[in-house]
Order: sequence, then structure tokens, then C-alpha cells
Amino acid sequence: MENFTAYNPVKLIFGKGVINQLHQIAPQLGKKALVVYGQGSVKKYQILPQVTNQLALCGIKFIEFSGIKPNPRIDEVRKAADLAKKENVDFIVAVGGGSVIDSAKVISLAAKHDTDPWEFVIGQATPTQALPLVTVLTVAGTGSEMNNVAVLQNNQTQQKLGFRHELMFPKVSFLDPSYTSSVPRFQTACGIADIISHALEAYFGDGNSPLADKFAAQIIREVMETGLKLVNDLFNYDLRARIMLASTYALNGTTAIGRGNTGDWGTHAIGHALSLLYDIPHGATLSIAFPAWMKLMLNQIPDRIRKLGRLVFDDGCLSAQEVIEKFEEFFQLIDLPIRLSEVNLTKEDAQIIEELLNKQKATGRVFQLDDSMRSAIVDYMAHG
Amino acid sequence: MENFTAYNPVKLIFGKGVINQLHQIAPQLGKKALVVYGQGSVKKYQILPQVTNQLALCGIKFIEFSGIKPNPRIDEVRKAADLAKKENVDFIVAVGGGSVIDSAKVISLAAKHDTDPWEFVIGQATPTQALPLVTVLTVAGTGSEMNNVAVLQNNQTQQKLGFRHELMFPKVSFLDPSYTSSVPRFQTACGIADIISHALEAYFGDGNSPLADKFAAQIIREVMETGLKLVNDLFNYDLRARIMLASTYALNGTTAIGRGNTGDWGTHAIGHALSLLYDIPHGATLSIAFPAWMKLMLNQIPDRIRKLGRLVFDDGCLSAQEVIEKFEEFFQLIDLPIRLSEVNLTKEDAQIIEELLNKQKATGRVFQLDDSMRSAIVDYMAHG
Repeated sequence: MENFTAYNPVKLIFGKGVINQLHQIAPQLGKKALVVYGQGSVKKYQILPQVTNQLALCGIKFIEFSGIKPNPRIDEVRKAADLAKKENVDFIVAVGGGSVIDSAKVISLAAKHDTDPWEFVIGQATPTQALPLVTVLTVAGTGSEMNNVAVLQNNQTQQKLGFRHELMFPKVSFLDPSYTSSVPRFQTACGIADIISHALEAYFGDGNSPLADKFAAQIIREVMETGLKLVNDLFNYDLRARIMLASTYALNGTTAIGRGNTGDWGTHAIGHALSLLYDIPHGATLSIAFPAWMKLMLNQIPDRIRKLGRLVFDDGCLSAQEVIEKFEEFFQLIDLPIRLSEVNLTKEDAQIIEELLNKQKATGRVFQLDDSMRSAIVDYMAHG
Repeated sequence: MENFTAYNPVKLIFGKGVINQLHQIAPQLGKKALVVYGQGSVKKYQILPQVTNQLALCGIKFIEFSGIKPNPRIDEVRKAADLAKKENVDFIVAVGGGSVIDSAKVISLAAKHDTDPWEFVIGQATPTQALPLVTVLTVAGTGSEMNNVAVLQNNQTQQKLGFRHELMFPKVSFLDPSYTSSVPRFQTACGIADIISHALEAYFGDGNSPLADKFAAQIIREVMETGLKLVNDLFNYDLRARIMLASTYALNGTTAIGRGNTGDWGTHAIGHALSLLYDIPHGATLSIAFPAWMKLMLNQIPDRIRKLGRLVFDDGCLSAQEVIEKFEEFFQLIDLPIRLSEVNLTKEDAQIIEELLNKQKATGRVFQLDDSMRSAIVDYMAHG
């Protein structure tokens, strides 16, 4: 087992109607808030008014910043941070999924500095303070509601990068599973692939931590048991709750205990490139990329993949190849793509993807990828 | 799934040699510390000097309070709190197992109030502030290093009670598995029973939370896999690390997600009475009490016990009765008692135990116990 530090000070308030506690908590954070959200679905589904009513109830003034896109951009973060500074807000309330919460985390830093926030993302500057952040989650999958990570895209520099900082832990996150009921079938499935991928990235992290392996595998089991039912029963509260909870625990540190890091993240690097080039939803890039990454690892770590099969599928007889097929089958069962052709990408696109991956030197933290390995992954994503 | 709140701000620093980080952290907490420990084993095994050297290294003055007993008493807490006040210390460093850490938690409250600390334990007074607490764990089992619970005994009132308060979360806990290497075989086994019992108390908590069930069961699996080897290989670092980690996660909230409470705790109430009357080590009271409690529940919740068997032993064919036997077998394999006679208690003692349990109205939070149920539990503890 590797030495490690576990620290997660986020207060998670989970369940039906929990937003009604916001008016008790918000006054501790200040008198004026910036409410950040995406492209309007939180208005359409009457979630935003529940949040702003709570703020009004305790006399907190607020301004809104909308328009955060899926695969969120640094441009919106810059604009929102400027607004937060101009309006002199005390805290941020993020209402949305991973894109909104990730953006809000960096907004919370940028609002307290004169540095361009992309400098934080690429590690050229270190934040020293942040506005407090409250999140109200409306899409399961990200895990961002209970960690200190943000992933942002910079279209100018053709980069999509994740970074982590202790100042980016939300203070409080409200998780009402009923808020996710309006997430459409395909986006729900994308969230499921994201959760599974987070657990897999952790499983393929550093060192030998059998308890972390067990936790990661159980999250995948929970999601596979539940997800298959959920995509055909989208308004089932209990299934939504189980997925939302599994999602949070897939990326809040629970699966990283006893490891020297939080996971490999090579597959996410590949997925990020697909999103950057073609704006494919994050989860759908992962259902394509993870089987390809595991296939590359088939000869390198066959025992590790077989152990995964034993823990997730309760079947010690599965070969590593069969374990990969089981994951592909599951993604297909929830109608996610597992090959580039299923998101209408051609042989020429595969070439473009490979070039970007090589230019970025896309790699994992544990399993280093070189040009020939990236080529093999792209080849599998294209042809199986 | 029940609504719930998850919050655990403890920073856990885990691994070999981690105490060497104390001198970087301690200056943030103040200039003078009270170092609390037990009956000297931390001196004998050269753990205490490693802690105090770190304090000296960063110029922190400290005084010592020793003599915390297993099954810790409120008397020592009172004395230590008086010392903390008199010496005007800024923070507490607890070096030891559950008894020391639990005591230190209440000392940290009492040092900031004029109230008698037993008032906090029985809920007659509410603490409003606390000294910061650092823990250095030397015995696995308690879980106290990463939660806000303390259990204390009052011999005058014949009570052994647990209570929980947000102010009792340690700030930082150092977990070096090598510090547990000197724990003798029997006490190691007691810790193992404690961990399993914590996971079981959570499993038998409120509501339907399949992911929490899975996590609890995996902790038991991890401990059963590891514990059997560890009791015959006490100086194996990796086994010590696995047990220590499982112990922390059995009682840091991970197994309570999706429940309305942290568990049933009826079995612990029974175990506490045994400790109170005969000073039996906590873990050994639980290896006796848990099978008896499950036996009582056999007809009430057979499906729940069978599900436990499926999750822990990977065997869906086990009857509820067989599941109980499996737990008894495991406790016997690590040489723990499962009946009162094995700790030299007689039929007359059983009578005394039953009287105390009835006097205390010992019960669980989820499964209410009445006199006849307590009688059945004592009967099983006595005779099987």
C-alpha cells in the first residue's frame, strides 16, 4: 500500500427537498451571490427558482451568469469572474452538472485574483484564495460536487485539462436526485459511463490497495445494476438516487485510498481530445476510449483486468479479453457508442485524433503512453 | 434511500513515517500542546518520542497527561481538562487507540468550558467550542481517528455512553500502520471484531441503501481476508496497513451513506454493559454480542441477514442461520470468545448482565429491544 492523504471537507446534503436547507446555510457565506448555470434547462425544469427563492428567503442578493456550455470553456469562466469582481459578490452558487460546477470552481478562484484563470489550469500560477462555493447538482456523473477538481477547455490553445486545488472544494453541495429526472436518456447513459470510468481510472491507479479495489468495483456493480434499469425508467426516484450517490463516491477520494495518486487518467486524456475536436459528450467519449485503453493493456496487466472481472462480475473464470467485452456489452446495452463510427467519425477523423493525441502527448499518470500506443488505441476505437 | 448528510473534514495522513509531517502542521494549531496517552505502551514502543520530537522541532511547548485506561473513564477526562485549562494549551495531541482518542475528544471540549464534561456526554449541555485535536493512532479498530464520536464510561452512574458532535472531529490524524505492530495478538483480534461490528451496525441501519450495504460488506471481506493472516503474522506491515485502513473506513461515514442514521448500535449497547461490569476488552464483548443479536433477529429480518451472507461470503445459498455461524466461525478462528463462558462468566453473571441491560433499557436505534429480547440475547451469549 502506498502512503496517501485523504481529505474532503465538502458537506454533502442528499435527498428529496434538501434545497430547502439552503436558506439556513447561505447567510454564513455572505450577503451577495453569483448564481452560475448553463443553457437554461435549470430554468425550464423549475430548479433555478427553487434555488433563488431560498436566497431571497434569507435576504441574500444575487446576480446570474448563464451560458456555461457542455465541455466548458475558459472564456465563460473569465467573463463570469469579471462579473463577480464587478458586482463584488461574496460567494458562488453553481446550479447544474459537471460543466457548471467545474466552471464555478475556477470562477471562485479567478474572482479573488487578477491572474488570468487559465494560468491556474496550466499550473503557471497558484491561487491563494477563493470565494466560497455552493453547488446544486442536476446531472449525475461528474463527481465534481464532492471533490477539488475542475476540467476546462481552451479552444485557442486546443487544450482540455483537469487540475486540482484544495481551495476548489465546494463548501456545501445539495444533491436532490429528483433534479436529475429531466436528464434525457442519452445524457443519463453518458453520466453512467462517466461514473464507471472514474471508478476504472481509480482502479488502474498506483500501488496495491485491495480495499480501494473493492470499493471501485462495488461502485461499478451498483451502477451496472441500477443503470440498466434507469435508462428505461427515467423518472424512478430510487434509481436516480442510487446513480447520483454512486457518482459522487466514484470521485470523492473513496476509491483512491491506499494509492499514491487518484488514478491513471490516461483514458480521460483520450476522451478529452475527442470532446475538444468534435464536441462529443464526455461520457460518450469514455465508452469509446475505455475499452480501447484496456485492450492496449491486455498483455501488460492481464491479471489486473481479470481481477476486475472477478470483483465486478463475480466471475473468476473470465479472461481479460472477456472482461473488456463485458464492459463493451454494458455500454451497448445502455445505447452508448463504443466505436468512432457510432459517433459518425471516419478514418480521416481517426487520423486527426491520433495527431492531436500525439501533439498533446496524451498519457496516463501510471501507464505512460507513447506514439505507438496512442496509435493502437485510436485504431481500436476506429475498428475494434 | 433516506435523506442524509455526509460531512467529514478530518485530514487523514496515512503510511510509514507520516509522523514526520507533524512539525509542518502543528504550528498552525498553536504554540502549546497537551499530549494525551494511555498507560505507557507508546513510551515502551518508542512512539511517543517520535511525536514529541516533532513538536520540539517546530518549537511547540507541550505537557503530558498519561493514564487513560481501556474502556476510558470520565474521571481522567476531567483531570486532563483541568490540566489543559491550568496550562492554557492551544491544542491536544492524542497518541493511542480508541480510549485515548475518545477521551481526548471530550477533553478538547471540556478545556473550553466550565461545564462538567459528563453533561456533554449525556446531552444535558451542548458544547460551543473545542481545542483543535491531532490524533496519532496506535491501535486499529476504533475508527475514532476519523469521526466525531466518543464513548466514555462513568463508573459512578454505571453508564457507558457514546455521543457525537461536529466539534469533535480531529483536525488531522496520523495513521502509521507500523505503530500498530506492537499490538499483541489478542488485542489485534479484538480490533478486528470491532471493525466488523462497526460495519455490521451500519449494515443494520435505517432504510435501503444498496451502495452502503456493498461498502460495509466489502470492509468485512477485507478484514476477514486480512485478519486471519495478520493474527499469525503480527509484524507484516502490509496486513497491518490493510486492517488500519479498513478500520478507519468502517466508521468514517462511508458505510452510512443513504441511511437516516449511522447504524443500529444495539449490539454496542450490549457490549458496553459487558465492559462496564467486567472490564472485558471492547472487541471481545462484540464477538460475543453480535452473533447473539443476529440470532435474535433471525426471524425478524432473515432476508437482510441472507443478503449479508451473499455480499460478504459471495454465497447466495447460505441460510440466515448459516450466515451467523460463519461469523462465529471467523471469530473463533482468530481466537476470540463467542460465549460468556469463554471470558469466565457464569450463569450468575448472565443474570447480572441482564439486570443491567434492563435497567439501562439497552436498545438499538433501528431495532428496539425490550426485556424479553434482551433476555434472549443474554441467553444466547450464555448458552448459544
